[in-house]
Amino acid sequence: MSADNEAEAQEKLIDLAAQFYDQFDRGEIPEMSVPTRTKSNIVFDEDEDVWVYGERESTRSANSVRGARKLLKAIYTIDFLSEQLEEDRSSTLRELYYLSESWDVNEAQFSSQDESNQLVEDLEIVSEVTREDFHMRPEESGATIMGPLYLREQTRRGEREIHCQKDVGEGGYQIPNNPDTIEFLDNDADFVLCVETGGMRDRLVENGFDEKYNTIIVHLKGQPARATRRITKRLQDELDLPVTVFTDGDPWSYRIFGSVAYGSIKSAHLSEYLATPEAQFIGIQPEDIVEYDLPTDPLSDSDINALESELEDPRFQTDYWEEQIEIQLDIEKKSEQQSLASHGLDFVTETYLPERLEAMGVL
Amino acid sequence: MSADNEAEAQEKLIDLAAQFYDQFDRGEIPEMSVPTRTKSNIVFDEDEDVWVYGERESTRSANSVRGARKLLKAIYTIDFLSEQLEEDRSSTLRELYYLSESWDVNEAQFSSQDESNQLVEDLEIVSEVTREDFHMRPEESGATIMGPLYLREQTRRGEREIHCQKDVGEGGYQIPNNPDTIEFLDNDADFVLCVETGGMRDRLVENGFDEKYNTIIVHLKGQPARATRRITKRLQDELDLPVTVFTDGDPWSYRIFGSVAYGSIKSAHLSEYLATPEAQFIGIQPEDIVEYDLPTDPLSDSDINALESELEDPRFQTDYWEEQIEIQLDIEKKSEQQSLASHGLDFVTETYLPERLEAMGVL
Repeated sequence: MSADNEAEAQEKLIDLAAQFYDQFDRGEIPEMSVPTRTKSNIVFDEDEDVWVYGERESTRSANSVRGARKLLKAIYTIDFLSEQLEEDRSSTLRELYYLSESWDVNEAQFSSQDESNQLVEDLEIVSEVTREDFHMRPEESGATIMGPLYLREQTRRGEREIHCQKDVGEGGYQIPNNPDTIEFLDNDADFVLCVETGGMRDRLVENGFDEKYNTIIVHLKGQPARATRRITKRLQDELDLPVTVFTDGDPWSYRIFGSVAYGSIKSAHLSEYLATPEAQFIGIQPEDIVEYDLPTDPLSDSDINALESELEDPRFQTDYWEEQIEIQLDIEKKSEQQSLASHGLDFVTETYLPERLEAMGVL
Repeated sequence: MSADNEAEAQEKLIDLAAQFYDQFDRGEIPEMSVPTRTKSNIVFDEDEDVWVYGERESTRSANSVRGARKLLKAIYTIDFLSEQLEEDRSSTLRELYYLSESWDVNEAQFSSQDESNQLVEDLEIVSEVTREDFHMRPEESGATIMGPLYLREQTRRGEREIHCQKDVGEGGYQIPNNPDTIEFLDNDADFVLCVETGGMRDRLVENGFDEKYNTIIVHLKGQPARATRRITKRLQDELDLPVTVFTDGDPWSYRIFGSVAYGSIKSAHLSEYLATPEAQFIGIQPEDIVEYDLPTDPLSDSDINALESELEDPRFQTDYWEEQIEIQLDIEKKSEQQSLASHGLDFVTETYLPERLEAMGVL
């Protein structure tokens, strides 16, 4: 699986360089077109339920010194990435930036990391290959998994077969930077529960929730890394497991749900690869704050602004979200996941989650 | 080992409650003394090379309503912690705060999480039991280990024996919240290398540095969590391995080294448990920036202030650190770990680290 991706990624990169060559050969000025990556060129694809780029394009052309330099940098980067794939190596975005200092042509060197980051994103979009398949690693690490899932990870030290309950410590299985090196071998899971905070993840593991309810617990660690979103999507697609998302009850956490379910504006070109539109929100719902009489904090002005902008966001324009957001604006309160402990340490696993999962039709 | 700690922790907590009882019984007003926890009452213990509290004490006495309430909260918390240990359960600081809402006496409830956090720290100091032995978990998770280390972790699902190279994926072994549940079974390691950033940790693992140099790579993930510092100290003490620390070359990273080596002001009561005074700094040293001609950023005003305050810090008052900090103030530049990539992706593992380790006498 992995080797195919590499060969394909390399081929697409070389195609791109060949395209510049052909343009030169035909006496044309080389150029490369990419979708305009601004907020105004992002549209919500109602059929697929995810964000995608619109039809506006920008062209990087060698008809100016600035444009020519951009294409030169692209060619050096393609050369580096192609060699990296050939040697089955990988690197971080920051290393690429520093590495450019060793290139023989000064004008191909990046002047800032923003520039190299953006170029890699452009190459992702144009070649339709993900950064992971270029073997570019993120700086941030993926999170952890605990649950009845048996998998095989292809590492550069050979294959590792790991059961995500029996072969790991309490910390769980650490998701690698590129989860497409994982093959799912077997599972006894009924559903996936993505959890925002470490404190709640640890509570569920301590209470044995994953064992009792055959749950794959994925720790999101706040706004989830790409690796975490990718493996969540694969659990849904390949194992046909319902995916549920459990966060704090505030507008920032609804955005975490949104990025799992619908993708983010920043990586709209990857929605198909990263987003899980079937994901369902468990809570904390604003109505739970009332129903379970949870300890709360008052909404701040920025919370209220964020809720109001969610009401305008196509991802949240459903009857369900409109009702919940209206409730929250009305009660002017928010609650954290861990506030469920006000009813005792077992309330979340013995009462709250089973009730919610039943109401959602997952149990 | 773990069961002993639990019994001892419970005993010490009950002793504390018994002390209040005896004070009542003798017709005295109950009170509890703790070291004053302000910066002015922190001293550097030159013999042990770590921070400890000085001799000033504050007394929480029931001779005022406010003081009586503090002791009431302490007693409820002791009761909760003692029961938690009895049942072999655990909880987070945030859960304790929310849980207090379920207590039958309103006046025992915490009014803020700062208050419950501080009480737990007071109990740590007075009882000389660590928060981990109370089974209070942090919110933040520990980092990961990769290297020739075979260990046994006591989980609540039974024992897990894990080799931190052969039984883990590329993400490594996830350090549990309380690393004292780990027993070291065997190792082929020559030294420990603690690494600040994820990008560098991944570079070392990809290049097989842990295999070639028999290195236990501990990812610090920026300012390290208590669990990460604790396991580092145990690797030094129990396995007698030299500990080296590899960070960015800026004043904030020297503080990361300082917290590994000498402890932090916030947890000065735990220096003996968390600090590794034998730890050595590998770099990036200011002199490396010059010697290896690394890409740099200019020092900001806050960088300069931080360097100047390090010159006043007893932990950094050695010839070595004074020289390095003077060099940095002189060249007015800083460099990141990953800037070593400007000499190629293998430079760090084939040239820089071997040279530094040899100069330090570790290799």
